[in-house]
Amino acid sequence: MDAKVAARLAPVTLRQVAIRDGFWAERQRVNREITIPAIYQKLEETGRLAAWSGVRTHEIPRERSVVHMFWDSDTGKWLEAVAYSLSTHPDAALKAQADAVIAAIESAQQEDGYLNTYFPLLEPAGRWANLRDWHELYNAGHLIEGAVAYMQATGDGKLLEVLSRFADCIDDTFGSDDGKLRGYPGHPEIELALVKLYRETGEKRYLKLAKYFIDERGQAPHYYDWEATERGESRDDYWAKTYRYCQAHAPVREHTEANGHSVRACYLYAGIADVALETDDAELLRLSRLLWDDLTQQQMYVHGGVGPSHHNEGFTFAYDMPNETAYCETCAAIALAFWGQRMFHLDPDGRYIDIMERAIYNSSLSGISHSGDEFFYANPLTAYPGVNPQGRWHDTLEAGQYRRVPWFFCPCCPPNISRLIASIGDYSYSQAGERVYVHLYHDNSVTLDVAGRALELKQSTQYPWNGAISFAVQVDEPLPFELALRIPDWCYDFQLAVNGEAQSLLAEKGYVVLAREWAAGDSVELKLSMPVERVLPHPNIRQTAGQIALQRGPLLYCLEETDNGPQLANVQIPAEVKLEAAFDTALFGGVSVITGEALRSERSDGSSALYRHRSQVNIADSRFTFRAIPYYLWANREPGEMRVWVRSC
Amino acid sequence: MDAKVAARLAPVTLRQVAIRDGFWAERQRVNREITIPAIYQKLEETGRLAAWSGVRTHEIPRERSVVHMFWDSDTGKWLEAVAYSLSTHPDAALKAQADAVIAAIESAQQEDGYLNTYFPLLEPAGRWANLRDWHELYNAGHLIEGAVAYMQATGDGKLLEVLSRFADCIDDTFGSDDGKLRGYPGHPEIELALVKLYRETGEKRYLKLAKYFIDERGQAPHYYDWEATERGESRDDYWAKTYRYCQAHAPVREHTEANGHSVRACYLYAGIADVALETDDAELLRLSRLLWDDLTQQQMYVHGGVGPSHHNEGFTFAYDMPNETAYCETCAAIALAFWGQRMFHLDPDGRYIDIMERAIYNSSLSGISHSGDEFFYANPLTAYPGVNPQGRWHDTLEAGQYRRVPWFFCPCCPPNISRLIASIGDYSYSQAGERVYVHLYHDNSVTLDVAGRALELKQSTQYPWNGAISFAVQVDEPLPFELALRIPDWCYDFQLAVNGEAQSLLAEKGYVVLAREWAAGDSVELKLSMPVERVLPHPNIRQTAGQIALQRGPLLYCLEETDNGPQLANVQIPAEVKLEAAFDTALFGGVSVITGEALRSERSDGSSALYRHRSQVNIADSRFTFRAIPYYLWANREPGEMRVWVRSC
Repeated sequence: MDAKVAARLAPVTLRQVAIRDGFWAERQRVNREITIPAIYQKLEETGRLAAWSGVRTHEIPRERSVVHMFWDSDTGKWLEAVAYSLSTHPDAALKAQADAVIAAIESAQQEDGYLNTYFPLLEPAGRWANLRDWHELYNAGHLIEGAVAYMQATGDGKLLEVLSRFADCIDDTFGSDDGKLRGYPGHPEIELALVKLYRETGEKRYLKLAKYFIDERGQAPHYYDWEATERGESRDDYWAKTYRYCQAHAPVREHTEANGHSVRACYLYAGIADVALETDDAELLRLSRLLWDDLTQQQMYVHGGVGPSHHNEGFTFAYDMPNETAYCETCAAIALAFWGQRMFHLDPDGRYIDIMERAIYNSSLSGISHSGDEFFYANPLTAYPGVNPQGRWHDTLEAGQYRRVPWFFCPCCPPNISRLIASIGDYSYSQAGERVYVHLYHDNSVTLDVAGRALELKQSTQYPWNGAISFAVQVDEPLPFELALRIPDWCYDFQLAVNGEAQSLLAEKGYVVLAREWAAGDSVELKLSMPVERVLPHPNIRQTAGQIALQRGPLLYCLEETDNGPQLANVQIPAEVKLEAAFDTALFGGVSVITGEALRSERSDGSSALYRHRSQVNIADSRFTFRAIPYYLWANREPGEMRVWVRSC
Repeated sequence: MDAKVAARLAPVTLRQVAIRDGFWAERQRVNREITIPAIYQKLEETGRLAAWSGVRTHEIPRERSVVHMFWDSDTGKWLEAVAYSLSTHPDAALKAQADAVIAAIESAQQEDGYLNTYFPLLEPAGRWANLRDWHELYNAGHLIEGAVAYMQATGDGKLLEVLSRFADCIDDTFGSDDGKLRGYPGHPEIELALVKLYRETGEKRYLKLAKYFIDERGQAPHYYDWEATERGESRDDYWAKTYRYCQAHAPVREHTEANGHSVRACYLYAGIADVALETDDAELLRLSRLLWDDLTQQQMYVHGGVGPSHHNEGFTFAYDMPNETAYCETCAAIALAFWGQRMFHLDPDGRYIDIMERAIYNSSLSGISHSGDEFFYANPLTAYPGVNPQGRWHDTLEAGQYRRVPWFFCPCCPPNISRLIASIGDYSYSQAGERVYVHLYHDNSVTLDVAGRALELKQSTQYPWNGAISFAVQVDEPLPFELALRIPDWCYDFQLAVNGEAQSLLAEKGYVVLAREWAAGDSVELKLSMPVERVLPHPNIRQTAGQIALQRGPLLYCLEETDNGPQLANVQIPAEVKLEAAFDTALFGGVSVITGEALRSERSDGSSALYRHRSQVNIADSRFTFRAIPYYLWANREPGEMRVWVRSC
């Protein structure tokens, strides 16, 4: 694809995508009916909403010890989720609730545009005093995203005006001009938000500010050293010990690997991709590809999760993939999906969307319960009673099962998965002039403008349970356009037909392109072969040697104790065993499960000795039929063991 | 064995055991020439020695932030190691050095007998104010052990007088009598030390105090709650969250499993066994067996290490044995060996000595470098560059190789392994009247008193490299006694001869007993069959499923990258492969190595993809000859991977 096409390439927005049935319709229903109200209730209960009006009334809503400096971001993400939901499912009561929150936010804005609940209420002198650790710019980013989404959803620009004033205040404060502070956020996020704000308002200062934040990051003399000295602290007292934690150890353009806190990293990288696209910056494109390849070819789990360590909530080193203690924060998987979508628009190639889809269907969706009101922070690949990937105190007293919970002290993940589910339409299509890309397959209708004429594509499928997808074309009169259908990386065999006539096409950069003049009633049938696959890990991943994972279509599978009994480490799936997929209507409203014959090794000598010499031990292998369920659904039934990687023989 | 014999059963002391050649002679030489001087230098450099005289002169030896409340224990353990060394290898210069330290200690003693450097110097009001966290009684225990050893080694009772006065002060302060504090140590150790002091001095109050500390532990109302309130703190602020950490969650006699901080646990359990023996307490015997069985049958690593978690430096739950992050503190293995020896005297059975030997030769000895001047705190079973079992910050910046170091901020392990090596003679024999138990096989001569007559047994062997052991009996005139020779749990075949005449005897409770009238020049030949064994883990240990360890005699083996190349997780030792042992004179002054044919699995498709479907991958198995070395010697050559558990097929 040439640069000209790339430059015009843009996502189709969720407002163009109607989802009325199928996999995502049900997830969005639960999100609307359960998740969004549940999060609102928590925002209210915890004082996060009262804090906004508290700024003006000087009322601290809760005991000081629980008021935290990242509170505002939770409101911002909830408003964003609400906005996406209102875009596709108008709801006057919900809008009224959101409008009241917006009014409270507006009431908290300072004369100069500054907007924050924590510092005015609890620590006025702290304003902008510690960009490294305090979260003012992170909060600003999420509020800006919420404001842009709310404007787009409702046409009501009040919140956007508030956040534009705050963005102006930030722009007046930070930058390389004389008299400005040369700071940048310790927790990136605002970069991508400022690009959204620029796109919505057309105000180039916001794009310039985003670019400044990226380019100033990690420059010497180091801003975080300077501000620490200003606070009377030593840089050596930095709790995280290294600026790698916040990707500020070196100027960004000199980075060669993804590192540090994984959510910080992926938000930053998504912002870099946005700025690269908007400023046509070849160096940032090179950097984006480099970081993407490092992360996805050396540091990503099979479920699309990233950041193995709870110590830094982030990256460790290449091929380091502990399973039980895999941190893999829900927010990091979501941020990776965001970044993948942006990479596609910067460098059109299906490989970015392959990772985006992997992260969405597996390590992001696992972050929320099937019921919609409980959440994971960490998304491990093996679960064992008594092990907690969040790294809390290990002692038998607290050795319960790791489970989803309704809320966290730092509840960044719940509203994040909520906004992703509500906006899945944003990730489904892209358009570049007369070319329409289909990224995600699910039941929906998309309305497009091709060369000034209306096109409706109706997509019908049971994906991800089935690889058969059909498209019905609706146009008023014949219309030439290119339909680019994604052939996922997991698919080695597909059949394609237009109006029943088989098409023999090869995928290029992950897409087959049907270029023709389309007429009303034209149909496309795509059949993606979706056998059960055994996934083998890279041999450098020491933690999975000799083990396989099961995947079918975009879904990774896992074995749970409730289906397969305990001691899953002793289960082996022989190489020659046939694996079958079947749709189980009784499970979670209908999901495909994988079954096959497995071996379970057991000692039959009755000894309780921990260690015995081979010559003294009898081992018996028994056969049983295992059942694997989609990974994202684990921990929704009885507590017990879970394994993604299973020994093979 | 009946109770009468058990009651008379006692260890033979190291002063009776002359070690002039072989495995332990060399370890003791390095200990004398390198380790003991190196530790002295660190005690001096860090201000630990100056602190003793500082109490009287009110001079704080270092900046306050590095002075710590456990300092005194390091001096105590060093003096103990010195005493053991002087017992067998008199050294006037070393004794003079120790005497100067003892004089400084004496100068620090308060009027009422209280002895401590930290509190008089830095926090006078802190005396006895926080038994839960502060280490006054733990320090006292180690100083008492040092004093008893020094008295026994040199006949110089000055330090013993000082510590007896401190013990009297402690006895005046704590107890169930009216007017005394009902406290007990947060870090057990003093219990076993008080029994040593009782045995040396004959003063029954010390035994009674040891018993009080054991029985008061965990009683309600809880002393640590009370003292927290006295300090103006809430019990809920306890950093460790649970009194299980210090084995004070319930009265000791109600405990059903080993838990909490593993060094605290094993010192406590050793003290319980001592008190059980001295007070003939059947309930404490029952408890000791219960805790021993739980720990050694559900919570012990194959190298005898205990306490898998760095979070609490201790236990987690049954069968939880992570390998890379195995904490297995050197001190915990040593404490387990101490406890095992005491269990044998309480309940004469070789199974306790089997564990003692396992812990000494593997997870204790691994704590010190072959050169004698570097130490491990944690003793993991798998090493991989970038992984640190001490649980420090995980980021590529600090992702070095885990290696032994010369010293620690909390250097409990260095003098502990030093005192164990110096006192190996204490663990080699026991005697009960006319029965002589041989527990450990190594080159030495032991001098015994049997029914008032002198007996010398000269033991010659290349153990642990070889299972052939010969004994030469020296008596002035014929002497009846029973020679009880331990048949280790790892040995399934042995040959025994007296004066060349084969003996057909079965082992009972781990020992074969040769009962006869012995004459000068009688000889015994014991040949323990010592093939290379494949060790299989209990199937409940999920982390080692499908893997084997290699053991020969008492030694556990490991593969290091320097011998076997990287990616050891991809190495498999097939079940049918013959494993050979050979003595390599070029390695570490001569050690047995294990070799055999192994498979290495490698992807041959050239793909850099992290995850590939089985159908898309080519895997090639290549054969090579692996070399395994004794585990205790790992990390003495080039940095790199190490594995104890290797995949089998």
